[in-house]
Amino acid sequence: MSLTLHGYWRSSAAYRVRLALALKGLSYDSVVHDLRTGAQRAPDYRTLQPQGLVPVLDGPDGPLIQSPAILEWLEERYPNPPLLPAEGAGRAVVRAMAAIVACDIHPINNLRVLTMLRQDMGADDVAIGRWIGHWVREGFAALETLIERHGAGYAYGDTPTLADCHILPQVYNAERFQVDLSAFPRLVAAATRLRDRTPEAAPEMQGDAA
Amino acid sequence: MSLTLHGYWRSSAAYRVRLALALKGLSYDSVVHDLRTGAQRAPDYRTLQPQGLVPVLDGPDGPLIQSPAILEWLEERYPNPPLLPAEGAGRAVVRAMAAIVACDIHPINNLRVLTMLRQDMGADDVAIGRWIGHWVREGFAALETLIERHGAGYAYGDTPTLADCHILPQVYNAERFQVDLSAFPRLVAAATRLRDRTPEAAPEMQGDAA
Repeated sequence: MSLTLHGYWRSSAAYRVRLALALKGLSYDSVVHDLRTGAQRAPDYRTLQPQGLVPVLDGPDGPLIQSPAILEWLEERYPNPPLLPAEGAGRAVVRAMAAIVACDIHPINNLRVLTMLRQDMGADDVAIGRWIGHWVREGFAALETLIERHGAGYAYGDTPTLADCHILPQVYNAERFQVDLSAFPRLVAAATRLRDRTPEAAPEMQGDAA
Repeated sequence: MSLTLHGYWRSSAAYRVRLALALKGLSYDSVVHDLRTGAQRAPDYRTLQPQGLVPVLDGPDGPLIQSPAILEWLEERYPNPPLLPAEGAGRAVVRAMAAIVACDIHPINNLRVLTMLRQDMGADDVAIGRWIGHWVREGFAALETLIERHGAGYAYGDTPTLADCHILPQVYNAERFQVDLSAFPRLVAAATRLRDRTPEAAPEMQGDAA
């Protein structure tokens, strides 16, 4: 049964899904939507994703939206290798780490929010940079604490999990916006380890990379 | 095994957890942290929740953070009644609905973000109201479309799910900020149905309600 990922090379939510697909050894077709031109807001695409956002993963259960939901679906449908620990306490920690990125860092720094800050709040590049750095540092500080408690090379333990699938794309974003990450050595080390393991998932390796 | 919920009556993330506990018929102790005085940033509490946010659910697997992770833990630990459908496609839809609230509405309108908008971007009450309304309407429009496709009294089907546990607290927030919800009749009906079924979880019924 074939899988098709609707994404954009620089979308960190699409990058999360590419990482899970790579770790599970799943092949897929790519359809790209250029966020810079608003292609994801076209009516045809909105029938797949009513928010007009990437990614969508289309497959045996129809078009799936929202990367945290897509990752849980991949984990249930293709359980090997697992990206969640087996026991309840560990599963809760990994999902919490993922949620720190997916709920408390990324959405606040997303393109559509930055656009509204510029257009409606009059934010300039300096204010935008301060805004992005603030939310990255807040979330990464909590993650560094959790990785110190639970990590062993990766964010949780010594194999990659859904937490790492969220953290690496957020590190990629933070580097793009030149956020100083020197206070988060364990987090950066885990992200680097996953990046080295999954070169095919990297933004710059996608067909639509500019 | 006893459960203790660290929360605040008006926190919509804590409200999500109260709803799941109520639907599963689980009793718990409450510890309240007054967000208006910054009690959640006290060092003792930060050992439980390194971000200094509510909620935390403390129980047999230790202190759990991040409401989406807590809800998944509750579902796995106390599977009856289920708050996720049995089949993969339905689980993905319910989780996506939950993520639209948890990732794409609530974090952008959270107290800490509004405070930064006021302090760092110079936003006044009018600008804050416009900001909140914008993100609620964007997310609720997508949810209304999904509920039209999948709902039958509740957001997905005819029994409450994790989607409803996210939607009702967001409706509560939207009403607080006087967002016009007339364009989302199915969403409001599902939220009202869950509110009527779980009066004990309502913000105004909590011991710390002002």
